[in-house]
Amino acid sequence: MPIIETHILEGYSDADKARLAGALTNAALSVVPATPDAITVMIHEMPRAHYMRGGTHRDPAPARPDAAATVRTYLAAMEARDLPNARTLLDDGFVMNFPDAPGMTTLEDLIAWSKPRYAFVKKTYDSIETLQSGETAVVYAIGTLYGEWLDGTAFDGIRFIDRFELTNGRITRQDVWNDMAEVKVNA
Amino acid sequence: MPIIETHILEGYSDADKARLAGALTNAALSVVPATPDAITVMIHEMPRAHYMRGGTHRDPAPARPDAAATVRTYLAAMEARDLPNARTLLDDGFVMNFPDAPGMTTLEDLIAWSKPRYAFVKKTYDSIETLQSGETAVVYAIGTLYGEWLDGTAFDGIRFIDRFELTNGRITRQDVWNDMAEVKVNA
Amino acid sequence: MPIIETHILEGYSDADKARLAGALTNAALSVVPATPDAITVMIHEMPRAHYMRGGTHRDPAPARPDAAATVRTYLAAMEARDLPNARTLLDDGFVMNFPDAPGMTTLEDLIAWSKPRYAFVKKTYDSIETLQSGETAVVYAIGTLYGEWLDGTAFDGIRFIDRFELTNGRITRQDVWNDMAEVKVNA
Amino acid sequence: MPIIETHILEGYSDADKARLAGALTNAALSVVPATPDAITVMIHEMPRAHYMRGGTHRDPAPARPDAAATVRTYLAAMEARDLPNARTLLDDGFVMNFPDAPGMTTLEDLIAWSKPRYAFVKKTYDSIETLQSGETAVVYAIGTLYGEWLDGTAFDGIRFIDRFELTNGRITRQDVWNDMAEVKVNA
Amino acid sequence: MPIIETHILEGYSDADKARLAGALTNAALSVVPATPDAITVMIHEMPRAHYMRGGTHRDPAPARPDAAATVRTYLAAMEARDLPNARTLLDDGFVMNFPDAPGMTTLEDLIAWSKPRYAFVKKTYDSIETLQSGETAVVYAIGTLYGEWLDGTAFDGIRFIDRFELTNGRITRQDVWNDMAEVKVNA
Amino acid sequence: MPIIETHILEGYSDADKARLAGALTNAALSVVPATPDAITVMIHEMPRAHYMRGGTHRDPAPARPDAAATVRTYLAAMEARDLPNARTLLDDGFVMNFPDAPGMTTLEDLIAWSKPRYAFVKKTYDSIETLQSGETAVVYAIGTLYGEWLDGTAFDGIRFIDRFELTNGRITRQDVWNDMAEVKVNA
Repeated sequence: MPIIETHILEGYSDADKARLAGALTNAALSVVPATPDAITVMIHEMPRAHYMRGGTHRDPAPARPDAAATVRTYLAAMEARDLPNARTLLDDGFVMNFPDAPGMTTLEDLIAWSKPRYAFVKKTYDSIETLQSGETAVVYAIGTLYGEWLDGTAFDGIRFIDRFELTNGRITRQDVWNDMAEVKVNA
Repeated sequence: MPIIETHILEGYSDADKARLAGALTNAALSVVPATPDAITVMIHEMPRAHYMRGGTHRDPAPARPDAAATVRTYLAAMEARDLPNARTLLDDGFVMNFPDAPGMTTLEDLIAWSKPRYAFVKKTYDSIETLQSGETAVVYAIGTLYGEWLDGTAFDGIRFIDRFELTNGRITRQDVWNDMAEVKVNA
Repeated sequence: MPIIETHILEGYSDADKARLAGALTNAALSVVPATPDAITVMIHEMPRAHYMRGGTHRDPAPARPDAAATVRTYLAAMEARDLPNARTLLDDGFVMNFPDAPGMTTLEDLIAWSKPRYAFVKKTYDSIETLQSGETAVVYAIGTLYGEWLDGTAFDGIRFIDRFELTNGRITRQDVWNDMAEVKVNA
Repeated sequence: MPIIETHILEGYSDADKARLAGALTNAALSVVPATPDAITVMIHEMPRAHYMRGGTHRDPAPARPDAAATVRTYLAAMEARDLPNARTLLDDGFVMNFPDAPGMTTLEDLIAWSKPRYAFVKKTYDSIETLQSGETAVVYAIGTLYGEWLDGTAFDGIRFIDRFELTNGRITRQDVWNDMAEVKVNA
Repeated sequence: MPIIETHILEGYSDADKARLAGALTNAALSVVPATPDAITVMIHEMPRAHYMRGGTHRDPAPARPDAAATVRTYLAAMEARDLPNARTLLDDGFVMNFPDAPGMTTLEDLIAWSKPRYAFVKKTYDSIETLQSGETAVVYAIGTLYGEWLDGTAFDGIRFIDRFELTNGRITRQDVWNDMAEVKVNA
Repeated sequence: MPIIETHILEGYSDADKARLAGALTNAALSVVPATPDAITVMIHEMPRAHYMRGGTHRDPAPARPDAAATVRTYLAAMEARDLPNARTLLDDGFVMNFPDAPGMTTLEDLIAWSKPRYAFVKKTYDSIETLQSGETAVVYAIGTLYGEWLDGTAFDGIRFIDRFELTNGRITRQDVWNDMAEVKVNA
């Protein structure tokens, strides 16, 4: 228990369905005090001709893309300084909030902000977590930073957390926290 | 679409069921490109006598407590420096990771760590977000800090994010990031 | 076959449910070549707390009244010349179309129209038939007229058919056909 | 709400299923005070091997034909005076009741009856309405007549209503009312 | 898997439902290669007003009595030589087939048959097994006999098997096999 | 009533499904006082991708073989003295209990036991009955024996009953009762 039956229109890939069933399983576990193995999800797929609302058939739309996968692609493009590809994943109203740098709206702003701070930085990921809130997907990326200060000394193990919001598969917002300043102060 | 039917044992409160239905709705929205209004959740409740697995009845257990509510209670107790009540919400294996202060295990550690940093600090919350991952609930609290430095000057608007893990209703881990050091450096 | 399962919110009377099940049975019989006994209808009633759309509960509204019953009440009131009660069943935009008398909007118009035609008329009903089309109910009353011509001679057995449209339980339109003129011509 | 699930044997065409879903939607609307868009119909189709009653499989029979379509075909054949084709749609026990002409059983009777009445008549349809009552389908055709009197003068706009009963896809009964006599009297 | 949902009319006792769920579980296990724990049975109970076939409600009848319990009662009454009570459990057409004694129809026949065979006999049961075949329940009682021969010597451990058929809760047939003769021959 | 819906993973043959539906029908009839025709079984088959427990897909295993068919094959092989084939149907822990001969474990034991008893024996079957109890199938074969005594005289019509237990499609136990000794004693 519980047993969750989901009626959906035909047209989702097996990966979409597995993602859906996984999300429903976790949703159930947030309230039902069971082990995951006790949560059963059944998907009942309906051909277009078998479903009507108000006496009219409905066309299935493509699944929302996997928000975590989109964020991973974005972070990889940024690390590779591949701005054109990173930019394709951003919504028109994209906003970034970095430590002491709120409200940046372009990737160029970000590059400019980082220039006086470090020579380069790369990320090691401990976890990527996703939650959905209405039509907005939220993705958290957590891990540590390593790289080189402007003076050429290396650093690593600096904790960070990035929070992303996505709508319709595009990133609309990025918030970044990390211990860089803390580490520098104490260095 | 989709239409989600959930069969559960009798015994959950209306609030638990609303929480369950809300979580299932968001789970569906993470894959199905619909507006929330297009997501229908039906809960089918079964009296104990109407459900058998392996030919034997099962007893429903109390719902997992609302993790966000637990975290709110904990944060309120901590802000009020009500350590005894805060402590009741912590799991035996509780660990805290604060900026440049990993691996604290007691609230007394935390108080000691904060002493040389500020006179007091309080939190304004912008959002509390919850996700479930297997039997672990994760809660994010996001907002800004205000308070007083040791020299008596006030501060406010310092961004923070707290991440909590909970198992069986108890907090097992807290990770904290904020812009305090950044702000100080730039002050 | 078929087996029809209907999920509805709690709050309908047993009579409403029987009417619903009867209508669903006839709907199935319009396509499925079975005897009525082969049509099974199951109603699954959901307490308010067990149904959510878009994460919010919905309140059940009272059932639409039985359109055939409304029409019977109206016809009885008209036959008894109880215009005040008949009028309570009419929608504001009520229109009547009688033989060679289209577009009457008040019961007084109807009385005036009938005055030069007969001394009085009463109806014997052979059948009352109802169909639903979207939010409009259509009721047919079929039978024969009897009464007295203006010259005092009696008549009977004159075929008639009345068609009514109802929205939200009120009559919005009445169309009447009968053989009165035919009978007179041939008399 | 409501959500209607219908389990049927495999073998119906998409058009049959749409007709079934439409009929179920209207059936629901006759009791549930919702807009059509709030009525969801799901059809669950079962392969022959997945359904047993009394431990034996059942064979699906062809859907009942669309009664409204049958009536339209009949009316078109009659208007074209194509009696052979019209006759194929009539049941052996077919009976017609026309104004002041009850109980005709052959199309030749009808032609004879109409001869002294008008040179020709054609129909303009305002609506075709169908309802099912057990194994009998009832179809109403409503509109106006136009044509030519015997003296060569034209007429049009004369209201009529035809009521048909069908069993097993054949027309068993036709009842006709119209304002022809009324119009003539007043002419 | 599998998950078995059973829709029944309200009116069965919890014991009846447990018996039904147990029987369904075993039925599933006869085909599905799972452990009993993998078989889920959900019973959906319908108030009389929520179920219609052919547009009419159906009244639930009392559950068939537990055939194994009936047989146990019968065997206990026979062992206690309480013929009147034993007789109440027999159908009018009751027939018994004992070793070399086919076609007895009364309990008195049985007593007469046993008289020249042993002084008394009692049964120890190893198992009672039940199966259903259409409207007939079949019960097997298996175990060993102990008692006294006519010459006063004791015997025990003699294998027996009794097979009973029941219809509408009454025993219609009893077939008995045992090793008594074998044992005597070899004694 | 009742209506039984069974959700199973894709992969069973039509014969397996018919066997499952038949077993469920009899299970229902053991409690519900209906005729077999009133018992409806619907099988809902799920592709592997549509079913998850604990967020992981499950692979269907082959159906348990039909225990009655296995026993028939075994009995035919034994009657033909085809021990090698008979042996393939036996579980490693196979045990046989014959009249006054408990605990035989090999078919050779059985042959040795029968040698001083009769020249040959063959079986006429009146019925084969199967029941499932957890993971064990039980099969009863009932009928009469015919053959030849050691002295060359023929016999027939001797009642017998065989009880078999099967696990995972293999016979683990056979218990045999018959009237041979009784008949001999009385001969």
